[in-house]
Amino acid sequence: MTGAQQNLQTSFADRHIGTTSADQQVMLDAVGQPSLDALVRAAIPESIHAAPVTDSVIPAAVGETEALAELRAKAGRNTVRRAMIGLGYHGTHTPAVIQRNVLENPSWYTAYTPYQPEISQGRLEALINFQTMVSDLTGMATAGASMLDEGTAVVEGMLLARRASKVKGDAFLVDGDLLPQTRALLDHRADAVGITLREFDAVTGPSDDDLDGAFGVILQYPGASGRVVDPSATIERVHAGGGIAVVAADLLAMTLLASPGDLGADVAVGTSQRFGVPLGFGGPHAGYLAVRAGLERQLPGRLVGVSFDADGQMAYRLSLQTREQHIRREKATSNICTAQVLLAVMASMYAVYHGPEGLRFIADRVARTTSALADVARSAGLEVLHEHWFDTLTLRAPGRAAEIVDAARDADRLLHLVDADTLQLSVDETTTPEDVTALAGVFGAVDVTVPATEGAVRDAATGLPSDLLRSSEYLTHPVFSAHRSETRMMRYLKHLSDKDYALDRGMIPLGSCTMKLNAATEMAAVTWPEFANVHPFAPREDVEGYLDMIDDLESWLAGVTGYDTVSLQPNAGSQGELAGLLAIRGYHRSRGDLDRTVCLIPSSAHGTNAASAVLAGMQVVVVACDEDGNVDLADLRAKTAQHAKTLAALMITYPSTHGVYEHDVRDVCDAVHEAGGQVYVDGANLNALLGHARFGDFGGDVSHLNLHKTFCIPHGGGGPGVGPVAAKAHLAPFLPAHPMAQQADRRPGSSTAASDDADGRLAHAGGPVSAAPYGSPSILPITWTYVRMMGLEGLTRATEAAVLGANYIAARLRETFPVLYTGESGLVAHECILDLRPLRESSGITVDDVAKRLVDYGFHAPTMSFPVAGTLMVEPTESEDLAELDRFVDAMLAIRAEAAAVERGEWPADDNPLVHAPHTAASVISGEWDHAYTREQGVYPLPGISARKYWPPVRRIDQAYGDRNLVCACPPIEAFA
Amino acid sequence: MTGAQQNLQTSFADRHIGTTSADQQVMLDAVGQPSLDALVRAAIPESIHAAPVTDSVIPAAVGETEALAELRAKAGRNTVRRAMIGLGYHGTHTPAVIQRNVLENPSWYTAYTPYQPEISQGRLEALINFQTMVSDLTGMATAGASMLDEGTAVVEGMLLARRASKVKGDAFLVDGDLLPQTRALLDHRADAVGITLREFDAVTGPSDDDLDGAFGVILQYPGASGRVVDPSATIERVHAGGGIAVVAADLLAMTLLASPGDLGADVAVGTSQRFGVPLGFGGPHAGYLAVRAGLERQLPGRLVGVSFDADGQMAYRLSLQTREQHIRREKATSNICTAQVLLAVMASMYAVYHGPEGLRFIADRVARTTSALADVARSAGLEVLHEHWFDTLTLRAPGRAAEIVDAARDADRLLHLVDADTLQLSVDETTTPEDVTALAGVFGAVDVTVPATEGAVRDAATGLPSDLLRSSEYLTHPVFSAHRSETRMMRYLKHLSDKDYALDRGMIPLGSCTMKLNAATEMAAVTWPEFANVHPFAPREDVEGYLDMIDDLESWLAGVTGYDTVSLQPNAGSQGELAGLLAIRGYHRSRGDLDRTVCLIPSSAHGTNAASAVLAGMQVVVVACDEDGNVDLADLRAKTAQHAKTLAALMITYPSTHGVYEHDVRDVCDAVHEAGGQVYVDGANLNALLGHARFGDFGGDVSHLNLHKTFCIPHGGGGPGVGPVAAKAHLAPFLPAHPMAQQADRRPGSSTAASDDADGRLAHAGGPVSAAPYGSPSILPITWTYVRMMGLEGLTRATEAAVLGANYIAARLRETFPVLYTGESGLVAHECILDLRPLRESSGITVDDVAKRLVDYGFHAPTMSFPVAGTLMVEPTESEDLAELDRFVDAMLAIRAEAAAVERGEWPADDNPLVHAPHTAASVISGEWDHAYTREQGVYPLPGISARKYWPPVRRIDQAYGDRNLVCACPPIEAFA
Repeated sequence: MTGAQQNLQTSFADRHIGTTSADQQVMLDAVGQPSLDALVRAAIPESIHAAPVTDSVIPAAVGETEALAELRAKAGRNTVRRAMIGLGYHGTHTPAVIQRNVLENPSWYTAYTPYQPEISQGRLEALINFQTMVSDLTGMATAGASMLDEGTAVVEGMLLARRASKVKGDAFLVDGDLLPQTRALLDHRADAVGITLREFDAVTGPSDDDLDGAFGVILQYPGASGRVVDPSATIERVHAGGGIAVVAADLLAMTLLASPGDLGADVAVGTSQRFGVPLGFGGPHAGYLAVRAGLERQLPGRLVGVSFDADGQMAYRLSLQTREQHIRREKATSNICTAQVLLAVMASMYAVYHGPEGLRFIADRVARTTSALADVARSAGLEVLHEHWFDTLTLRAPGRAAEIVDAARDADRLLHLVDADTLQLSVDETTTPEDVTALAGVFGAVDVTVPATEGAVRDAATGLPSDLLRSSEYLTHPVFSAHRSETRMMRYLKHLSDKDYALDRGMIPLGSCTMKLNAATEMAAVTWPEFANVHPFAPREDVEGYLDMIDDLESWLAGVTGYDTVSLQPNAGSQGELAGLLAIRGYHRSRGDLDRTVCLIPSSAHGTNAASAVLAGMQVVVVACDEDGNVDLADLRAKTAQHAKTLAALMITYPSTHGVYEHDVRDVCDAVHEAGGQVYVDGANLNALLGHARFGDFGGDVSHLNLHKTFCIPHGGGGPGVGPVAAKAHLAPFLPAHPMAQQADRRPGSSTAASDDADGRLAHAGGPVSAAPYGSPSILPITWTYVRMMGLEGLTRATEAAVLGANYIAARLRETFPVLYTGESGLVAHECILDLRPLRESSGITVDDVAKRLVDYGFHAPTMSFPVAGTLMVEPTESEDLAELDRFVDAMLAIRAEAAAVERGEWPADDNPLVHAPHTAASVISGEWDHAYTREQGVYPLPGISARKYWPPVRRIDQAYGDRNLVCACPPIEAFA
Repeated sequence: MTGAQQNLQTSFADRHIGTTSADQQVMLDAVGQPSLDALVRAAIPESIHAAPVTDSVIPAAVGETEALAELRAKAGRNTVRRAMIGLGYHGTHTPAVIQRNVLENPSWYTAYTPYQPEISQGRLEALINFQTMVSDLTGMATAGASMLDEGTAVVEGMLLARRASKVKGDAFLVDGDLLPQTRALLDHRADAVGITLREFDAVTGPSDDDLDGAFGVILQYPGASGRVVDPSATIERVHAGGGIAVVAADLLAMTLLASPGDLGADVAVGTSQRFGVPLGFGGPHAGYLAVRAGLERQLPGRLVGVSFDADGQMAYRLSLQTREQHIRREKATSNICTAQVLLAVMASMYAVYHGPEGLRFIADRVARTTSALADVARSAGLEVLHEHWFDTLTLRAPGRAAEIVDAARDADRLLHLVDADTLQLSVDETTTPEDVTALAGVFGAVDVTVPATEGAVRDAATGLPSDLLRSSEYLTHPVFSAHRSETRMMRYLKHLSDKDYALDRGMIPLGSCTMKLNAATEMAAVTWPEFANVHPFAPREDVEGYLDMIDDLESWLAGVTGYDTVSLQPNAGSQGELAGLLAIRGYHRSRGDLDRTVCLIPSSAHGTNAASAVLAGMQVVVVACDEDGNVDLADLRAKTAQHAKTLAALMITYPSTHGVYEHDVRDVCDAVHEAGGQVYVDGANLNALLGHARFGDFGGDVSHLNLHKTFCIPHGGGGPGVGPVAAKAHLAPFLPAHPMAQQADRRPGSSTAASDDADGRLAHAGGPVSAAPYGSPSILPITWTYVRMMGLEGLTRATEAAVLGANYIAARLRETFPVLYTGESGLVAHECILDLRPLRESSGITVDDVAKRLVDYGFHAPTMSFPVAGTLMVEPTESEDLAELDRFVDAMLAIRAEAAAVERGEWPADDNPLVHAPHTAASVISGEWDHAYTREQGVYPLPGISARKYWPPVRRIDQAYGDRNLVCACPPIEAFA
């Protein structure tokens, strides 16, 4: 492609970056810098800026049309066949109304995590529907708002079991019929935290020896082989000793089979993928985790609950929000942060759209089709291995299994080869009588009557055991029967998104979250069938386009960060951290350094860092920060000396979580290296560095990146995310691999085995951290397109614009709100911390009041009280334009003036527009008005707000009430009266 | 495909139809009918119901996935090549942010025509941007809100010229370099209204003889051949005699060339397709028409203007709304009704996104690339015919033209073959240096230096005449420079759509408009590249998929209406009417019945009927209706007797515009036939008949259908529409054909010539009524998918549900509001007329008050004062669910109760929530409240409204002021202060 970018006056980078060069000049004047170049040179320490990033690391930018054309070519190299591989991933029909109005609608996909519940009621309602759906189907009291995938949900279930168990042992009983990827994940994760796995057969149950010292059990229901075994006997035995029973249950099967709750389980885990979420080569999908009554407060991840607003109206919110890693740090019990909100919304809406009868119908049809296939297989002389099944058959064909699987592939159906004599197949809602007929041909069932019509298929009896049939009700809440027509569904989705504030309304200046543009061109390919409908365990020949895109991305991301290799497997930033720390652990252990388990973490670090370290089996030691917010070098040196023999790693965020380019970062890294430790650089703030400096160049051994921050994957209301881990060559063998990876050099053991397709790439051979080999590949086109359209020049310009934006806000606001922490030049990086503690001193107005008052002004609040309590951390990103930045500054100045009126006593401390914020329309319309301020002052505090007013649907929500009174399922309709 | 539909419990029809069978039972009880079957038998006269529609007319329904799979197979049979054919259709890059947030967003595409301006401010603003863009670029004072296409815009320009001209003659001067499809349209349309066309050469200008009796002129600028000629001398000469000069101008060229306004033209016409609207095999695109000062009130079609609301705030509205066919009928000067709003919005947003510099850059690059190609062609020994050009070259290659065009096609570039010695090519913004290189190879320019890079191409001088370069400014309004980043653009689009009420908020119960579900699956294929990027004059081999889909649709639509043949060419209902009447005209004339020009039209008819008849050269004679709203048979017989020799046709709508199944429709048809006339059945109300009766079976000779009503094409805020004409075999030769139609039996003259591809189809051989051979093909996948997924059974059920819905509303409201006109059974058809005149009598509350008050209750008003003044006509359609119907009924009852309070004197006649409706949020928040009712009564009149409140952005708009003070371009920013 020649001239691809140049045939438009306006390049994609110009569209992505919000400020024009004229705007930037105005901003530079305010900041007191003559040029962008000067600004960046002043802000970024020379010591790290020294090594310029060269052009060669990524190709020159192309335009939007050309980028999509290249991506279409890659898509064309994927082959979509009917996937009957199963193993936790199933074909599904995404209802078009959900695809268009959720997955393709920025009002849903550009939203942030609902930490500000007053402006997130729409997605919170969708999530409580998800929780209700999961808890109903699993028979559990309480479900969380989604997990990253089934594999990690099982890990969380295991960790929860250890916490909640009365058994003081480190053994965990594992069903021999567990999904293979789940088992691989468990192996890796259990090892790091000192848990021993003991495998048993679900039919015979664990032996007494197995049970001794076992804090819990995990059962797959139905089993990975398709076998349906009643788990209740095992559950009872585990309970008898005080252990915890975790059941990994298929949600669709639960519409027909007795639920984990019915059978006495304590915890249920699994995935909601087959509820309308495309296969996507493995993700993203929403995993789930649900618990019986009494274990609610043990749930990791996010939990949506019910509380009341200032008017006594019921409202949704995140429950127990403060219990997790951001305050518990090394005492945290999980490092989960990102969830899979967008996918959970889709799955919940699938259940809303189909309702209980619809789901039951789908499940019944799946079960009967499976049995019809069993009949066909038997007629063809294959042995059907189990007595009972739901959707999956294990077939014995001695010596012929591979041949059958190959023939099926030639007939465009993918089956699963277990071994030379055995194969497996799974049925889902997309399976048709044509599939039955085609497989009859493949099996050689030529002279028998093949059920070739819908009616004939439906005549088959299901393979479900009659004593395990479900009798309990589910999805009885009216929401699951009120939205059956497409019109009604469309309006429900619109109604919910109308309540929410997302990037399509205005800026979301959340420090550390990098809420930048998610361009429409970047999003386009996500729903292309060639990316959406690919099974994660499809044969390599069918996924060349995906692998090619993944190769590009790994190489580009390594190039821009100065590392030698990248793994895209971690499907969240937290998982990237964990993968990096596990790699460090693996590295030390491989050298015999078994004692190197101390992880140094600065006091300013994000709580996830410490939580991840704990889950990687490390001990956290906190390093002090100096008063400028930088790592205290003296304390660091003292700590490295103190732990010289045991030092595993330092985790450091750069620029720091204070939003500052620390000057001495090279010295910090050197000190750690000298003590034999590895340097983990947290890439959360990479948006302040791209194109100007590289972690790998100034001392990093390993980093994770957040594609959902720096690289434009939308936040989706709280997920999906992608957290690639990037490392120097010596750590490559310890990066996450996966037993089913299509690339041989991405399978465990590949570092020692000859790699058949390495192309000079470094093999990864560590244990997996995600259920799917490449994590969440279906959203990688977003990042691929972004990098392809920006090129290094565009990325570099974006960094400059982001840094300029933050410094402009700092410059305009610093006289009103002190800016905490700046570099030596007085400049911040890509975000700035506004200190609101003096305001509270003088006026009693809290950071919470200001955050909620910003809603009245039409903004999403900045990050509150992180990393410093009583502050707001503002990150405008490069995508905001000058008018929007000024609108924010004007709002903050106006809020300060309102606080001044409180200080002067013009408004009482308990009756002013700040403490009553946010204001709903109803609150200023209904009833008498007896406040010290006017209705207009309440909701139209500045001119122009009326013309683009965002109305929050509820007033300030009582967080404490909701935590004290946990209600985490759809409330009855009467509750809204 | 077997069992395709049955693999879901819920078929597509169940999703499309809003009411469940349980709902329907409740509704039947209210209506007093035991079953749906009984209802329909009671409502539809036995005489027309007699002939059951058989299954064979359309195939059995398939599910959503299967329908899309079939459509993808058709798409795969279209071949997308770089189209350099030009002739008014050009490749363009649709900005992804516009595609996703307008074309793929139901908030835009499900909106209705902005007749209720208070709830349409978003799309009205987008349209005034369009008008400003057109008037700026053409240098005209005022532009309309879009025309159907360039060809029909030229026709309207001609008719306008005749009205406005001081010359009393019937001749119209026609540039010999007019687009060929425009010329064909003009020929057909001029003939019908007695205008003689006189062709002249633009270089020499018209002769004095030509000028004699010529009321005006049309000039193509640049010419169809690419030649750029200064039209000002011709314009001056036409002006000298008092004539009107119309210039068809290319909008992109106008960024570089002196505009029609600069050159003295009175009228400018053209298309905005190349401003980001995909080729789509010919449509839909937004045509434009603009006029100099003084001609504003002559503009046909819609015109957006500025007025003020009840609070004195500036607000947008449709100007001169009442002047057109709905009141002028046979005195109307145009039958235009549907516009191309959705496409006009896209084109205007393209201009907003690129701004004047961006557009100029694109045009300049196009011009230079064209010249680079001219150099290449010359080097290869081809002759470049003209001295000046913008984007199009005419090349002479004696004897080799076809060979070159073929070779280019083999190289995936489509050129235009003029004759054996001549070819043409056009450049657009998608043309790249690769295209130049490829064509150099095709031309045989092997030994010359080909400009193969963007820089080299840009070094070429443009072919523009230096004395015609543009010096006037354009797009200087801030809206054209404020939205350059994608973030900003996305928010602008969201901000505008947030102001509007579309189907995604709630029901739009507009009688006669059939605002039903536009399903996401139906919309999916519109943006597939294989449908979007096809030139209307691409060779037949490249468009097999399109032709196949068109064949399906023509055959299905004929089957369900009882006709023998269908033409999909008319791109609006009005054009379908015209095509049908022109077919009747052609039929009579072919039989020597030159005097048969009288068209009978019942007094209840839609105004468009009469307007279309006039434009088909007919005289309108009105037939009376009896007091039940049916055609007065006695009067009809009297009129047929009176006009026995001259009767051409009767136009009748069935069910009638009163929403009633007339009992005697067969007798009516028979009477007309006996008098030698043809029966035109207006298909506007087909939604009440589908599957139960067919026009062709009870006497219709010809009908038009509205795919944007009955067949789910979304209204797009006022267009696009598709108005196929369906006819009996004897009229087939007179249905619209097109000189460039890919199917030989769809070209003029095909009825006599041997048809090479008729497949037994009836040839169409009349003149064209649209610029493109198949009208607006890119939206036909919507209807194709709908019919494919419904099958006859689904369509029949939909009819029943629609009739039940209307009767349910009638039953629940008739005690409060008299229901005007019912059939003999006391039942209505698919809509009902609520008589509000008694209310006005008793309370002074007008139909307008009720309509605006419905906005406060969260509804779009029903059709106001049509077909009877002082009434509301309610058409719920089958897609609304019972809860929504009840919500509407409750709102109407509550409004009646409010009026009762006025009657009782509790509220003054001039201060009550009805006369002040609608209420904005600001109007109940800001300032003192001194009304007789409370703020809550103003905006939350019923419980539950607060939870899903739609806030109109303005209060009631002063329509008269806006008509008196026409302002039809973007007002200065200060006007909003």
